[in-house]
Amino acid sequence: MTWNQTEVARQLKIKYPIILAGMAGGATTPELVAAVSHAGGLGTLGAGYMAPEHMRLSIHKIRELTPFPFGVNLFIPERSAEMSDEKLRSMKEILKPYREKLGIEGEFVLGKVAESFEEQVQVLLDEKVPVFSFTFGIPSMDLITEFKRRNIILIGTATTVREAQALEESGVDMIVGQGYEAGGHRGTFLESTQRSLIGTMGLIPQITDYVSIPVIAAGGIMDGRGIAAALMLGAKGVQLGTAFLTCEESGAHHAYKKAIAESTEESTVLTRSFSGKQARGIENQFIREMERYGSSILDYPIQNAITRDLRQAAAQRNNQEFMSLWAGQATRLSTEESAAAFMDRIIEETAKILSR
Amino acid sequence: MTWNQTEVARQLKIKYPIILAGMAGGATTPELVAAVSHAGGLGTLGAGYMAPEHMRLSIHKIRELTPFPFGVNLFIPERSAEMSDEKLRSMKEILKPYREKLGIEGEFVLGKVAESFEEQVQVLLDEKVPVFSFTFGIPSMDLITEFKRRNIILIGTATTVREAQALEESGVDMIVGQGYEAGGHRGTFLESTQRSLIGTMGLIPQITDYVSIPVIAAGGIMDGRGIAAALMLGAKGVQLGTAFLTCEESGAHHAYKKAIAESTEESTVLTRSFSGKQARGIENQFIREMERYGSSILDYPIQNAITRDLRQAAAQRNNQEFMSLWAGQATRLSTEESAAAFMDRIIEETAKILSR
Repeated sequence: MTWNQTEVARQLKIKYPIILAGMAGGATTPELVAAVSHAGGLGTLGAGYMAPEHMRLSIHKIRELTPFPFGVNLFIPERSAEMSDEKLRSMKEILKPYREKLGIEGEFVLGKVAESFEEQVQVLLDEKVPVFSFTFGIPSMDLITEFKRRNIILIGTATTVREAQALEESGVDMIVGQGYEAGGHRGTFLESTQRSLIGTMGLIPQITDYVSIPVIAAGGIMDGRGIAAALMLGAKGVQLGTAFLTCEESGAHHAYKKAIAESTEESTVLTRSFSGKQARGIENQFIREMERYGSSILDYPIQNAITRDLRQAAAQRNNQEFMSLWAGQATRLSTEESAAAFMDRIIEETAKILSR
Repeated sequence: MTWNQTEVARQLKIKYPIILAGMAGGATTPELVAAVSHAGGLGTLGAGYMAPEHMRLSIHKIRELTPFPFGVNLFIPERSAEMSDEKLRSMKEILKPYREKLGIEGEFVLGKVAESFEEQVQVLLDEKVPVFSFTFGIPSMDLITEFKRRNIILIGTATTVREAQALEESGVDMIVGQGYEAGGHRGTFLESTQRSLIGTMGLIPQITDYVSIPVIAAGGIMDGRGIAAALMLGAKGVQLGTAFLTCEESGAHHAYKKAIAESTEESTVLTRSFSGKQARGIENQFIREMERYGSSILDYPIQNAITRDLRQAAAQRNNQEFMSLWAGQATRLSTEESAAAFMDRIIEETAKILSR
């Protein structure tokens, strides 16, 4: 048996068990998703923040570009997000000088906090996407049944053994074990965020010992070395996010790509400042200054909604100090190449390392 | 070439590049050190807190028990530890109720804060120990020259790429890359402690890309899966600490062993409460309650000296709530067996995994 023919590859009907993380925020363009699937992996559309109609168009575009399987990633809604008028007013005051600095005119008005999960899910069901991956929780049993009825493969995200066990019990097909090194939002949903920061090297063998469905390793994996290591730990596949951000087809802003290229393993921090939910990104002025308002930061997704136009204005001005620069801890290994070239390289590296 | 014949194994003249971490505090008994070396790895005496005469006796004992190479680990002294009379008084007040609770009689008097590094080092030079490993910094150039003149192999500890580069420049023979998952004290010496918390999966390939001397992976490695994974990442050896704590020959207190056996991947936290230096251990009442005195905690090694009799009294009373229970993030993989059985098992596992 060759290294790539794992249960994950078989179930997903892909050649190599390498998954593009479904990063929300625009990096996972249909071109990037299709390129990864075309190269034998599984491209994933990060649709967490996407309007249903935009999702539908993106899915159609992916299908135009590739006949191969792909996934779509969504955020499971929080049960309760606290929003007192007082806290909202207080955060508006805190953000006011930043808005002025970035040239945003007019008073902030809180519009739609998040897209409707029900409507997003309906698109996936209508479109019969091959794979639905998700984070921040577990969909309802009814919903899981609906997906299974359509033979849509379900991939949940766990940051601890207990979360992995809960996902297995819910009936999902496979689990992404998200290590502490991973960039972007923590998928934690059962534990306190501090308790769930387990390094990939320690997390994967512990999860695989406690569940029987296949585990996909995520966090700190950037090349063939990481892929081979993850397989040794018992993972049947890997999920890479940061490594794809700097690919040519990635929709990440060029200031974001530049920040990754210039960062080191010491550059990232865990912060709630942009979205209200803990996420790993390259530290910048906004994160540093928001540190002092820790308790004023609103719950996800309200904080995310209230910082949205600020992040957009910063991006328009190429100002990386006020953009969310989600990234993992191994950015020294980042490269700039096409997704096809990147996939070919890491597949070759993995095969070479494993045949030694 | 078989998996075990790495540069680390060759240079250390051992059969398997598996190193017992030089854990200070009594776990690394001469019996445990000798058993690991006897099984083909490198046992290491954790002598950081040992009086020179005790070190000498332990080294003699190890040499009685095994003809194979072994190492001794020491702490590089801090350049400046702050100790104002006021802070000392304040911490004495904070600790007073704990001392009373644990039945310690009499007023606390600060005696010797730490053993003399110069005297400890002299023992290593006199005894011509095969290997000197260290953490918390880099010895002086003069000292490194002295060790090299005696053909004593030097192993430094790095938690970032910059620290690894500084160690290579200093002339050490190999580097332990200590990942975030690792139990016990962080070896960090150039960076802020927050910046240096890099998961093993991300740390090892980044370090190996930037230094040319061999790298030994530490942090989250508990069995053959972790060893095989570390080798894939580019490490030429591994260092295990927590996995050996529960071995029969380990000198760890039985309440400590029990706490490890009952812990999960969510049990540990990083704390300065016991020693003044950041270390990973199983959270207990002392750590939780000291959280609120964060800024009152004295610098290492003063905090360590001032909590010493408290920890000792707790151990005598089998009270794990006031002992330092250093452990890494993968304690679900802990086992209780002899060091010989453990070594045989992980060597067999590694070979099996790598031959798949």
